[in-house]
Amino acid sequence: MPLADRIEAALQSAVGRAQEGSAPPRLASALHYAVTPGGARIRPTILMAVATACGDDRPAVSDAAAAALELIHCASLVHDDMPCFDDADIRRGKPAVHRAFGEPLALLTGDSLIVLAFEVLGRAAHHEPVRAAQLVLTLAQRTGCPRGICAGQGWESEAKVDLSAYHKAKTGALFIAATQMGAIAAGQEAEPWEELGARIGEAFQVADDLRDALGDRESLGKPVGQDAVNGRPNAVLEYGVEGAVRRLKDILGGAISSIPSCPGEAMLAQMVRAQAERLTPVAPVRSRA
Amino acid sequence: MPLADRIEAALQSAVGRAQEGSAPPRLASALHYAVTPGGARIRPTILMAVATACGDDRPAVSDAAAAALELIHCASLVHDDMPCFDDADIRRGKPAVHRAFGEPLALLTGDSLIVLAFEVLGRAAHHEPVRAAQLVLTLAQRTGCPRGICAGQGWESEAKVDLSAYHKAKTGALFIAATQMGAIAAGQEAEPWEELGARIGEAFQVADDLRDALGDRESLGKPVGQDAVNGRPNAVLEYGVEGAVRRLKDILGGAISSIPSCPGEAMLAQMVRAQAERLTPVAPVRSRA
Repeated sequence: MPLADRIEAALQSAVGRAQEGSAPPRLASALHYAVTPGGARIRPTILMAVATACGDDRPAVSDAAAAALELIHCASLVHDDMPCFDDADIRRGKPAVHRAFGEPLALLTGDSLIVLAFEVLGRAAHHEPVRAAQLVLTLAQRTGCPRGICAGQGWESEAKVDLSAYHKAKTGALFIAATQMGAIAAGQEAEPWEELGARIGEAFQVADDLRDALGDRESLGKPVGQDAVNGRPNAVLEYGVEGAVRRLKDILGGAISSIPSCPGEAMLAQMVRAQAERLTPVAPVRSRA
Repeated sequence: MPLADRIEAALQSAVGRAQEGSAPPRLASALHYAVTPGGARIRPTILMAVATACGDDRPAVSDAAAAALELIHCASLVHDDMPCFDDADIRRGKPAVHRAFGEPLALLTGDSLIVLAFEVLGRAAHHEPVRAAQLVLTLAQRTGCPRGICAGQGWESEAKVDLSAYHKAKTGALFIAATQMGAIAAGQEAEPWEELGARIGEAFQVADDLRDALGDRESLGKPVGQDAVNGRPNAVLEYGVEGAVRRLKDILGGAISSIPSCPGEAMLAQMVRAQAERLTPVAPVRSRA
């Protein structure tokens, strides 16, 4: 089965179980709404690519890891869109969860998706308890505080921001989770895979900054120009458009050279190159820098 | 070490790790604020009592389970107090987290505490990976959807409420987690311990209803009369004060007789009786029923 189909099947199976039996109907609907249709599923795709490159000897464990990671990402989008953060109307081309279902259910949807991620990993222990427990620990560390996306978002409530900690946690954490969880799911050490995840995360951040600043609303799937409006750090405001594009290419080069030696090394390098093309912004753009 | 001290030490160690290194300072403060000082720590106390009754052969695993369960409970209080739910000013005798730190940090505090709970269990896998993975699964099922406290809270956004599913999920779920996680931590089967948890949960709900209706603000630690104001189901509105007190005693009797055969059976029965005395409301009361 193609990786993309495995990811969707694992996600739908997880969400389906959360909707069973005595689930309150509106919350059950909101869970599905928040997860489907997805964006590019870039984090679980990277996870699956690393697992495949490492041999993928327990596909059920990789599937669970990929679903868990994407569920955390979807949860973070639901909570980030809420009025007390971005107050976003639109996500992935349709009304944000809090607009479609109201604030109480948006809060609960995010909470439920976080919990569901760990439930999926708990079930995978049936196949491989040691790997499942390592996946739980890695995903938790990259989601919570001090090194996860919660910490990253938390920096936006500080008067004085540690920019390096902010970017690494806010965007980088789930990419590090992606590469490390892919390795763990396939029975490999996590540590050598941290750098690849960190570099992909940096590249993604610069690309996101470019799309935000250049007004590429369609591929961003959310309102543009938000960083300037909200006074958030942005690589384009810092380096200019050309500087940011150059930086993006440098980071992706570094990512490729950081790939640990493994059976699927060449395939992984190809995947990073493909993501690089996807990430580089396309015309029409209007320069703001 | 007394059980209460073990619970506090495990909680403080978990929160301490979340505050390390590059944690954003205000979020780090809010995590500690949300967990300390605690309420009665009733759920982890029940968990520890069951683990002890079952032999407690891996105390580090029981400690982790107790901390994880209380972290989920604290997270649920932080989110339930937010403006989109109860909009509560006071919790455990001090300003609620969203009043003390603002809504964005309250949302992130709840999220971070949920994640921290699973991180604590992920670390316990170092001692016992199979038990740790079972603890992850049980805690997730009793926290999320369709059978956990998220589902319970979700029923409050439905026009037509399944009252049995509502109570079982909203209040019962974490008591079932308490008894089952105590058994799992000590290497026993979880299933025989569900009924004890469910009955304690029912008793707790009736006692909470009594205190809400009778205006026992001090022991409740939050505003009273909220159920009538918010149109929520309440055993006192349903059975009257005397009927609710009678029901509380019946449920606790059932709880005691449901205790599975184990080395510490008599000690557990004694604990349930002690909780019964704690739960039964005391004067001064003003009847509303």
